[in-house]
Amino acid sequence: MIPRYARPEMTAIWEPQSKFRIWFEIEAHACDAQAKLGVIPESAAKAVWERGNFDIDRIDEIERETKHDVIAFLTNLAEYVGDEARFVHQGMTSSDVLDTCLSVQLTKACDILLDDMGKLLAALKAKAYAHKDDVCVGRSHGIHAEPVTFGLKMAQAYAEFDRNRERLINARKDIATCAISGAVGTFANIDPFVEEHVAKSLGLTPEPASTQVIPRDRHAMFFATLGVIASSIERIAVEIRHLQRTEVLEAEEYFAPGQKGSSAMPHKRNPVLTENLTGLARLVRMTAIPAMENVALWHERDISHSSVERGIGPDATITLDFALARLTAVIEKLVVYPENMMANMNKLGGLIHSQRVLLALTQAGVSREDSYRLVQRNAMRVWKEGEDFMELLKADADVTKALSSEQIEGVFDLEYHTKHVDTIFRRVFGE
Amino acid sequence: MIPRYARPEMTAIWEPQSKFRIWFEIEAHACDAQAKLGVIPESAAKAVWERGNFDIDRIDEIERETKHDVIAFLTNLAEYVGDEARFVHQGMTSSDVLDTCLSVQLTKACDILLDDMGKLLAALKAKAYAHKDDVCVGRSHGIHAEPVTFGLKMAQAYAEFDRNRERLINARKDIATCAISGAVGTFANIDPFVEEHVAKSLGLTPEPASTQVIPRDRHAMFFATLGVIASSIERIAVEIRHLQRTEVLEAEEYFAPGQKGSSAMPHKRNPVLTENLTGLARLVRMTAIPAMENVALWHERDISHSSVERGIGPDATITLDFALARLTAVIEKLVVYPENMMANMNKLGGLIHSQRVLLALTQAGVSREDSYRLVQRNAMRVWKEGEDFMELLKADADVTKALSSEQIEGVFDLEYHTKHVDTIFRRVFGE
Amino acid sequence: MIPRYARPEMTAIWEPQSKFRIWFEIEAHACDAQAKLGVIPESAAKAVWERGNFDIDRIDEIERETKHDVIAFLTNLAEYVGDEARFVHQGMTSSDVLDTCLSVQLTKACDILLDDMGKLLAALKAKAYAHKDDVCVGRSHGIHAEPVTFGLKMAQAYAEFDRNRERLINARKDIATCAISGAVGTFANIDPFVEEHVAKSLGLTPEPASTQVIPRDRHAMFFATLGVIASSIERIAVEIRHLQRTEVLEAEEYFAPGQKGSSAMPHKRNPVLTENLTGLARLVRMTAIPAMENVALWHERDISHSSVERGIGPDATITLDFALARLTAVIEKLVVYPENMMANMNKLGGLIHSQRVLLALTQAGVSREDSYRLVQRNAMRVWKEGEDFMELLKADADVTKALSSEQIEGVFDLEYHTKHVDTIFRRVFGE
Amino acid sequence: MIPRYARPEMTAIWEPQSKFRIWFEIEAHACDAQAKLGVIPESAAKAVWERGNFDIDRIDEIERETKHDVIAFLTNLAEYVGDEARFVHQGMTSSDVLDTCLSVQLTKACDILLDDMGKLLAALKAKAYAHKDDVCVGRSHGIHAEPVTFGLKMAQAYAEFDRNRERLINARKDIATCAISGAVGTFANIDPFVEEHVAKSLGLTPEPASTQVIPRDRHAMFFATLGVIASSIERIAVEIRHLQRTEVLEAEEYFAPGQKGSSAMPHKRNPVLTENLTGLARLVRMTAIPAMENVALWHERDISHSSVERGIGPDATITLDFALARLTAVIEKLVVYPENMMANMNKLGGLIHSQRVLLALTQAGVSREDSYRLVQRNAMRVWKEGEDFMELLKADADVTKALSSEQIEGVFDLEYHTKHVDTIFRRVFGE
Repeated sequence: MIPRYARPEMTAIWEPQSKFRIWFEIEAHACDAQAKLGVIPESAAKAVWERGNFDIDRIDEIERETKHDVIAFLTNLAEYVGDEARFVHQGMTSSDVLDTCLSVQLTKACDILLDDMGKLLAALKAKAYAHKDDVCVGRSHGIHAEPVTFGLKMAQAYAEFDRNRERLINARKDIATCAISGAVGTFANIDPFVEEHVAKSLGLTPEPASTQVIPRDRHAMFFATLGVIASSIERIAVEIRHLQRTEVLEAEEYFAPGQKGSSAMPHKRNPVLTENLTGLARLVRMTAIPAMENVALWHERDISHSSVERGIGPDATITLDFALARLTAVIEKLVVYPENMMANMNKLGGLIHSQRVLLALTQAGVSREDSYRLVQRNAMRVWKEGEDFMELLKADADVTKALSSEQIEGVFDLEYHTKHVDTIFRRVFGE
Repeated sequence: MIPRYARPEMTAIWEPQSKFRIWFEIEAHACDAQAKLGVIPESAAKAVWERGNFDIDRIDEIERETKHDVIAFLTNLAEYVGDEARFVHQGMTSSDVLDTCLSVQLTKACDILLDDMGKLLAALKAKAYAHKDDVCVGRSHGIHAEPVTFGLKMAQAYAEFDRNRERLINARKDIATCAISGAVGTFANIDPFVEEHVAKSLGLTPEPASTQVIPRDRHAMFFATLGVIASSIERIAVEIRHLQRTEVLEAEEYFAPGQKGSSAMPHKRNPVLTENLTGLARLVRMTAIPAMENVALWHERDISHSSVERGIGPDATITLDFALARLTAVIEKLVVYPENMMANMNKLGGLIHSQRVLLALTQAGVSREDSYRLVQRNAMRVWKEGEDFMELLKADADVTKALSSEQIEGVFDLEYHTKHVDTIFRRVFGE
Repeated sequence: MIPRYARPEMTAIWEPQSKFRIWFEIEAHACDAQAKLGVIPESAAKAVWERGNFDIDRIDEIERETKHDVIAFLTNLAEYVGDEARFVHQGMTSSDVLDTCLSVQLTKACDILLDDMGKLLAALKAKAYAHKDDVCVGRSHGIHAEPVTFGLKMAQAYAEFDRNRERLINARKDIATCAISGAVGTFANIDPFVEEHVAKSLGLTPEPASTQVIPRDRHAMFFATLGVIASSIERIAVEIRHLQRTEVLEAEEYFAPGQKGSSAMPHKRNPVLTENLTGLARLVRMTAIPAMENVALWHERDISHSSVERGIGPDATITLDFALARLTAVIEKLVVYPENMMANMNKLGGLIHSQRVLLALTQAGVSREDSYRLVQRNAMRVWKEGEDFMELLKADADVTKALSSEQIEGVFDLEYHTKHVDTIFRRVFGE
Repeated sequence: MIPRYARPEMTAIWEPQSKFRIWFEIEAHACDAQAKLGVIPESAAKAVWERGNFDIDRIDEIERETKHDVIAFLTNLAEYVGDEARFVHQGMTSSDVLDTCLSVQLTKACDILLDDMGKLLAALKAKAYAHKDDVCVGRSHGIHAEPVTFGLKMAQAYAEFDRNRERLINARKDIATCAISGAVGTFANIDPFVEEHVAKSLGLTPEPASTQVIPRDRHAMFFATLGVIASSIERIAVEIRHLQRTEVLEAEEYFAPGQKGSSAMPHKRNPVLTENLTGLARLVRMTAIPAMENVALWHERDISHSSVERGIGPDATITLDFALARLTAVIEKLVVYPENMMANMNKLGGLIHSQRVLLALTQAGVSREDSYRLVQRNAMRVWKEGEDFMELLKADADVTKALSSEQIEGVFDLEYHTKHVDTIFRRVFGE
């Protein structure tokens, strides 16, 4: 976790206070279930809820001695609960607490991420509608192709994050399970009812078949999904970085009036936020591999996954939360320059319409070969001497034999290219 | 693609013949739609279906000249269709064909993989029921813990692959889209109806908002999902490799009677299939990262993703298909040794029951401290001198003061551990 | 291996013919050594060299039966050598042949890659000197910063690949070892002299301590090194792709006169080679992870690494060879546009010199605050109204009080920025 | 960074205090060089060293305002140095400070890691010699093969880490460079002498050709090397985990007498340290990919690498340092059970010698087919009925026709397998 790329709400999930609170709730809910089953006295379950508490420093102190975090916690809990604490954790194994806690933490993290994505989607949608008809050149291979609109770019990003939202909802289901099944997952010393009760109380579902642990294919899928979302963040970030290049400058990250260096070098506004997002995407993405390597635990479990998750659990969720929020702010405040878009589009003197001219000529009855030759000789003059393509065509007798001035102008009409923007918006926003 | 790890049906999807056939169908269906729209003559669409054909060698020949695969294909197609071929591909861009073809290939690959997984699930289920009650020791950290059954191991694997099946179904939806939207995805030169028609004809859905290409977050999710499935394969493979170790030998890959080397060194039956699966899992898993790196294409597309997908598209699907089939065969023919399971479990003279003895003593009113001391002194004799735990307990007067012979024997009852196997099977198999 | 991204010389290394030839040489050299030791008759060693041969189809036929490639090879070899073949392979294990063969293949691959890099370095050097003084704007964050020269960009690339060359030389040493040490690496049935002899004959060094196999940390280092080299390829590829963007166009991949599409849309020259290189880099890079996962083989070996290496061995080396050659051709033929470089640099009316103006004013005694204000008010006019920075400064009485016209012009002198180009070239090229 | 897997010395390198101290030294050394060149007054350089200081809280306070860490530092420095601070940082760019600082941090980290590896090598060597002749069974595929010694396993690990040490020394050279070359690496505003002086003062070498930054192929190579080292840690960790399995128990992590749970369940000593090392290896290894993705910065630099390095710089080095130290402790205290090794080896009644029996029979003139049949029929009885292989052979008249009792016993002599242990030790330890 890198403090400067962390937000408090997500970070809090991973702090000892939250973890121990979840541990406490797991144990207390388990006691309720055990009491209902008559395995332990009702009074014990009640005592846990009423007197139960913990103190992090004290837990640390005990752990230094016992070298076992769950035992340290239970010992400390007993110091608050008193004698009836002996009924706590009965029939359970440490992993029951640890893994169910991780499930709670990851689902909470998911909920924040889903909320983040909701805000990002709103920002993308607003920007899409605001610039729905702002025409700019579409580029394949970094080379001018045909016109699109800036709104379309935002709509594409919206559609992509809408998919990511679905994926995260699926991933959330994957890690929202609870295991209270004992040392090797057989419920030998604890009734499955306890698991069901704790699961329900915590908003989880019972793990159908656990070993000592919840199977790690679930977590692998979760981190892989975060990696895909991070890659989508990178995509938008790279788009903005490209648009902000000095030679392009069709959009720009917002730059606060007083922000350093903006006036003596007014051009030197760097897309540092989206560059940063590009890097953060790499950090999130890298966690997919160790999460997959964690799946093949030995037999009923080994503990190799634990250190990995202590790292990537907080790191990937905290970083992705920060990145989504940062991207949302970038989109919300993005400064868009429609006039520069138009200037860039015109940079090639109308050559981006050459394909349509070719088509118009053939449709007007000129043979494909002749059409090609006519387009070519005018296109080359535009390219080499910087003249205006439309003007040249209008002045070319062989062209005007086939196409009237109006027809030529029609070919250069940008609205031809944007006529289906509404269709696409309908598909994306369902409106 | 490594020939020895490839099966013909999956390999065929990636062969030029299949690819060009899909290209042909995309173009022909598009002609149908264009004819319905009145953009091209009905006769042209009919001609394409009737006379359309292609010859791979000829396409290669043309491509060597034009350096463009789609143009080469269209040129060759025209050689069969004749003059009306000029109506083919109208308003389309190469990526419309390439990307929609990739979608068809990946969905076909998915269908094979889903079928593979169905067979694997059946094999796991059969093995689970066959060995539902075959007790073996559960191991955490590679160390004996408490009893489980071999059927439970298979049921856990079943549950894991059932999840993987769901994931693959989701991933299939992700890559089952069709884009026929022109040079920059605006439908400038082609009506969205064409896309809808082609999509429907090929069993795909229209891409809501394409650029020149179908967005690559879809493919990233697909390959990430394959990576998770591969990791689950690794998990079962590692389990079997462990069980086949000379010192353990609780299960063994099937070894054909005549298979080399089996008699002069009868112990030397190597788990080469599951070792191989462990390696194949790494090969599939590695493709998740480049697939994620492919997402951030520049603007309306660059072509960096293409070479990546030419590699990982066939490689990951072919390898995973082979691995699933191989794993299925391994499971189906797996030789299980219940007697060795029992021998291993008894190896520690009953020490795996020490926890339950402790519990029984405390429940019989012995203080926790005293119970612990009693268990400990007998356990240490078992450990150091190899004596039998139950016999020692029965001979220990301090123990027998609290527990009768029957009670002691009850503590060593394996059925205590298997009483919820049915519950777990119901959860997993829903029966 | 993707045929279109493969070159014959590298591909040949991985073909069965090459592999079996290397196997043959390993066995034959081993016989020589055994004969020298008196373990086998001299005549046997001689017979192997003289009559030894193999037939791939026949080997395949035998392997289908025995399911063991080395045995199939030895059986076929015996069919040529005759009775004395019984002395072949004595005391050896299959891995002795397989691993030593892989070492030979990888070192041969290295030699080709080193040769590739030599050619790339030559191309970069030639381009560096050819454009040593062609000034272009340096960009940080994609935004104009201060002038550099195109030669410097090439020199930086040269320095990077010079480092990569050193790294590959180190990696070559890592995988250039030979193991002929028997079933578990103890030389129980074979004298270490045989290993020494075979190693020497094949240009390898003896593996100091093998298990059944050559330890895989060596191969992990090899593939990790290829991954770094691939990343450097990506860096240059991305640079060229940026420079070829329509709005920038400072350099361009060579486009053959007859190449499709170049005249009707003269601007549509896509940097497809460098985009392709970007993708190929991802393919090479991904192999580093499974190669590292291969290191932890169980005990004296398991065979999980084998399938991985059957994939990444050929794939990574063939792809990297192709990529290096392609990059070399791109660099050699790269079309550079110094006039566009100058036009881009002037695009901001001289604002890239604002920093130096500030410095000149303070050095002329103007306070830092005043200097800043003077620069700022003129810079803003340039930025907003597109005027010329130098002209504005010359017309600003507050500026001219401190700086003469010559002094102002001096600040805009590009040679100020290039005065240490020779120093850097000397460091890089040592000349 | 995960606090429980971090050691103070390495962690300190990455703390703000260390970072700012290095920044200070870079600036102060640069002032010395500038003073020598006459660019700034000697008194200014002196003032920096004498009065220069910084206060982290104050820097944070300024950074919150300026949003720029280097400016905040310089402002705070000026508060201590006074007016002459205006000569500090002259002609430099922020990256000159940041990147050179990172080089210093990484080289310091390397020195700790090299020291760690020295200690690990010493531990491995001690263990190798202590158990040089302790025979245990060698296993391929997890199946008994032929005898090795435990000392050989340690010697192999030593050889592997000796290679890793060489690799790290190479990687250290890669990242031990200094760049003080100004905004785009041209030395426009600063003499190369300053870079040379600072480099020398800090134990670095001047970067031959920097852009605004030190090229990131260097860092990619560094992290890839850490990934390989981590993989070697995993290999030893997995070996120990295997040896500690209940059924094997040839070696065991040290377990302190009072450590929890050791007496009531004396068998339940879990290899938690090596399992933890397996996980830590994954955490280190994953950093290789983003480090490689960092190489292709845009033009003269973008800042995407920065967030990545803020994460993986501390994380990978701190984790690897901890892992190396933990592994060293594991090796030093490893409990080895030679008697269990022998018991395991004898588990198969001598079958591991079947290969040698076969050889002895053929050498005694029995045909290969007959030899095989003789071995086979006795081996099968051992395998199926648990009899003793040597005894059976001695009782088999067909065998004893060819081999005397002494000869048969000779074949079972373990020393046959260990006769070259000294050779291997000489190769590895050079003694």
